[in-house]
Amino acid sequence: MNILRISLSQINPILGDFKGNISKIADSIRQAKELESDIIAFPELALCGYPPEDLLLRPSFPNDSLRAIDHLLPFTKDICAIVGYARVDDNGLVHNSAAVISDGNLQAYYDKIELPNYGVFDEKRYFTQGSKPLAIKLNDTIIAVTICEDIWVSEGVPEKGAIKNGAEIIVNISASPFHAGKIEIRESLVCGLARRSKAYVCYTNLLGGQDELVFDGGAIVANPDGTMICSSPRFDENIVTIDLPLREKDESKHSTVVASQHPGIVIVPSKIKSDTKRNINQCPICAKMEKVDEIYKAIVLGTRDYITKNGFKKVLIGLSGGIDSALTACIAVDAFGKENVIGVTMPSEFTSDGTLSDAEKLAENLDIKLYKVPISEILGSYYSELGESLGPGKSGLEKENLQARIRGNILMALSNKFGWLVLTTGNKSETAVGYCTLYGDMAGGFAVIKDVPKTMVYKLSYYVNEKIGRELIPVSTIERPPTAELRPDQKDEDSLPPYPLLDSIIHLYVEDDKSKEDIIAAGYDSDVVNDVIRMIDLSEYKRRQAPPGVKITPKAFGRDRRMPITNKYGMFSKEGF
Amino acid sequence: MNILRISLSQINPILGDFKGNISKIADSIRQAKELESDIIAFPELALCGYPPEDLLLRPSFPNDSLRAIDHLLPFTKDICAIVGYARVDDNGLVHNSAAVISDGNLQAYYDKIELPNYGVFDEKRYFTQGSKPLAIKLNDTIIAVTICEDIWVSEGVPEKGAIKNGAEIIVNISASPFHAGKIEIRESLVCGLARRSKAYVCYTNLLGGQDELVFDGGAIVANPDGTMICSSPRFDENIVTIDLPLREKDESKHSTVVASQHPGIVIVPSKIKSDTKRNINQCPICAKMEKVDEIYKAIVLGTRDYITKNGFKKVLIGLSGGIDSALTACIAVDAFGKENVIGVTMPSEFTSDGTLSDAEKLAENLDIKLYKVPISEILGSYYSELGESLGPGKSGLEKENLQARIRGNILMALSNKFGWLVLTTGNKSETAVGYCTLYGDMAGGFAVIKDVPKTMVYKLSYYVNEKIGRELIPVSTIERPPTAELRPDQKDEDSLPPYPLLDSIIHLYVEDDKSKEDIIAAGYDSDVVNDVIRMIDLSEYKRRQAPPGVKITPKAFGRDRRMPITNKYGMFSKEGF
Repeated sequence: MNILRISLSQINPILGDFKGNISKIADSIRQAKELESDIIAFPELALCGYPPEDLLLRPSFPNDSLRAIDHLLPFTKDICAIVGYARVDDNGLVHNSAAVISDGNLQAYYDKIELPNYGVFDEKRYFTQGSKPLAIKLNDTIIAVTICEDIWVSEGVPEKGAIKNGAEIIVNISASPFHAGKIEIRESLVCGLARRSKAYVCYTNLLGGQDELVFDGGAIVANPDGTMICSSPRFDENIVTIDLPLREKDESKHSTVVASQHPGIVIVPSKIKSDTKRNINQCPICAKMEKVDEIYKAIVLGTRDYITKNGFKKVLIGLSGGIDSALTACIAVDAFGKENVIGVTMPSEFTSDGTLSDAEKLAENLDIKLYKVPISEILGSYYSELGESLGPGKSGLEKENLQARIRGNILMALSNKFGWLVLTTGNKSETAVGYCTLYGDMAGGFAVIKDVPKTMVYKLSYYVNEKIGRELIPVSTIERPPTAELRPDQKDEDSLPPYPLLDSIIHLYVEDDKSKEDIIAAGYDSDVVNDVIRMIDLSEYKRRQAPPGVKITPKAFGRDRRMPITNKYGMFSKEGF
Repeated sequence: MNILRISLSQINPILGDFKGNISKIADSIRQAKELESDIIAFPELALCGYPPEDLLLRPSFPNDSLRAIDHLLPFTKDICAIVGYARVDDNGLVHNSAAVISDGNLQAYYDKIELPNYGVFDEKRYFTQGSKPLAIKLNDTIIAVTICEDIWVSEGVPEKGAIKNGAEIIVNISASPFHAGKIEIRESLVCGLARRSKAYVCYTNLLGGQDELVFDGGAIVANPDGTMICSSPRFDENIVTIDLPLREKDESKHSTVVASQHPGIVIVPSKIKSDTKRNINQCPICAKMEKVDEIYKAIVLGTRDYITKNGFKKVLIGLSGGIDSALTACIAVDAFGKENVIGVTMPSEFTSDGTLSDAEKLAENLDIKLYKVPISEILGSYYSELGESLGPGKSGLEKENLQARIRGNILMALSNKFGWLVLTTGNKSETAVGYCTLYGDMAGGFAVIKDVPKTMVYKLSYYVNEKIGRELIPVSTIERPPTAELRPDQKDEDSLPPYPLLDSIIHLYVEDDKSKEDIIAAGYDSDVVNDVIRMIDLSEYKRRQAPPGVKITPKAFGRDRRMPITNKYGMFSKEGF
């Protein structure tokens, strides 16, 4: 064999939907066979979806995953498929594994050795780590099989095993969640491994949204010299297929490891006649995406998958006339189509003509249905009944929050009546400092831009308008100073530092885990830093009750950042002890 | 030394409050010195609180923990203190450690070897495991130091190390969260280890509530023959002190390991003259608590600590006249005093005279302030404004939920106005099946009985009345068939199976991780099982937005059970693939 043709499939499975996922995988195998591929590789845990979390603790789940592999066997005549699945061993231990199937048989399996247990990953909670690298021999070619984290540990057991086994190709099947810029890290990992091991590295990644995570796909193939020779489009299901020219095999020169001398190498029967293959188009290298572009696409995919995989068809959004809800509505229309997005504007006595007309203009630009439900009368009825309990004295925070909560109730009433899912519109900056109302603007099923800092909200808004080539989000919405409009003449900057400053401090404290002292030492004003950190710490209880949203930064709120609510760490004085 | 006097201190630290925790520890050391103890042991991570979660990822936190140990040194003249802390090693790796300090110096440290990463534990996310058991030599006595999970792994490295080092005493410092019945597991572990190792085992456990966890304390001392000789009262801060008669040390018989021959044994300088000690009362074995009693005390402690450690003084509860809110109010009065508990009754057109008068009677029995805020007018105002959007047709779920949400808003308005924290009143049965309204009765800061199945709510209610010897919770409240009163003649049993049946199925599915098929095979009606499981699976999104509450069962919702929202596992048919 002078050429090995490999297909890398990025499918979008539904977690736990074994039947549907089997059919997706079988379908990809069929396509790869039509292209006369020798091998097709699927992402990590492609068969069950990733991450299954505590479903893995219910013994029936990994057992069903084992059975599901059997259903794939009949599809593997004349092709070798590498499929990620959860494997139960004879002792009942569960592994994160890759099945190598061909010719109707499970030829070999590999148990992931490096189990990530940081960030959003809890793999040591679920899986027993493997101990032995796997290499397979297909005709004369040795191929090492690895899973995700295995290649993130430079010169770890899997890498050393691949080299020792004389692998000419290293396949890596991954479920690597998106954050902005991560693709470059992956590319450099893949190319670095190729260079060190002098092997082709073929990397395939999962696709799709799963609760707070988005898997962006993005197959990568690197040459043994460490240059990238192929990368697939991201954010869509697809299969890329590439021909890899192989080394001359000359047994007398011992250029190839003899399988029988290496107990770690499994010989996979193969009837492949690669010399008779018709030409294919070599897979190109996809153009780099702008940061704003990949973030936008990640949010659309994550939102679409959350809604549709959970069985919803239409979404409901409270449109304030502000930039956050405008951007959220644009994303929703992109994800679901204008006929499936309903807006509600809920003006109060503090709503300016400008914001109200902006909400209407946005709905018009997007061509979506808009309800109008004023809230002043309802607010009045609360005060009639509550007056005595609230006692004398000026209304304050409770009045601001009541307005937000009345709006939340209105959205939820429509949601309950019609089965539409409410999208919330809070960004990362306000989620961080708690500039939002529990059960008010935080009420809803999915928080679309929860991990998007306000400064990025602006960039995305300009991007949305540019992409379509006209004013979708009214420029007046973008240019108006941000306001919650819950009291007269309120402006965000009355309560918060300017957003560029706020976002920098949030970045340092939340994503980089810097201490207050570190941040002040970096040149930020100590009063501002103290204020911001105090607000972030005190808002943990709110975030705990927030709906999930798409992770787009290296550290999102949610499973990515697990902070105690009860703690006085932020409050203790360094000098005091 | 013929006798070693050891004190076991169960303190209630505040997470991250190094200053306050240092002072608590110093105070205990002072008390132990007054009692002429040779050693005092504090719980796991007593210095910083447990679990610090992602605070451990901020480098300043473990560094502060290191510095905090230095502040304890001056208190250790003439006593040896074993204190749990987070330790940073020279490579910047963080360990879950025990400091052995005496005579003003850090004499030794031990890094926990067995790191739990299941259930509520994520220790592999934070800590690097230790590799070497530690034994110290105090005068002639060898004492092994272990941390929590170290003794839950039977015949693991820590146990073998203790035996190999010839330990006469094994100290275990723990942070073992409460669930009903767990004390018996701990006792049997401690006694089993004592028997196997032929050593005294001295076990001390953390005290206090930390978000969803309650640490119940409960020191245990077992004889080398495996019998328990001491156990401390739980649910309160205390120090127990006990004299342990030691073996005759006869060097010529080699009955004692010579420290210099064992590099693992650290000699701790000691000026203790144990033979001159005055007598102390031997610590007795505390009487076993009834299940209902320990659950009640755990909830009181967990609720009190959540509220007070987070700086709140008063709490607010919506009183429906039903049993859940009645029990919650009783717990709150016990935890905070009647003057710090405020009730609100919020009748609607569906509120019966019986429930309304029960709410009033309860408030009278508890002698707490009760506000009355009717909701019908407010509900009407929503319908006036919403009518057009809701369209024609009968009102349904949205009307039921609106009532619950209006009540949530009223409670939150009072909370915002006066700074009182709202306690929610949902039990585990309804939290499981989603028989509750997001942003309605689920709105609040702490869910007191979140992990209490309805059948246990009844037992606790009888217990509350019996304990005080009069009718605190009206008998009519206990005996009325449960109803949400959100539509005419509504009863819980219209929507749910009878609670004893429901609770059994929840137990099997949630706590035991049985599959649908397993539960049906155990003899339950398949339609009921299917219904209940469907409801549990579909309510995951609600639970994700629920406030924290006290864990009292082996598996609570929250950090203990991490289920994906998006998944079709429950829905796929076994025959289909």
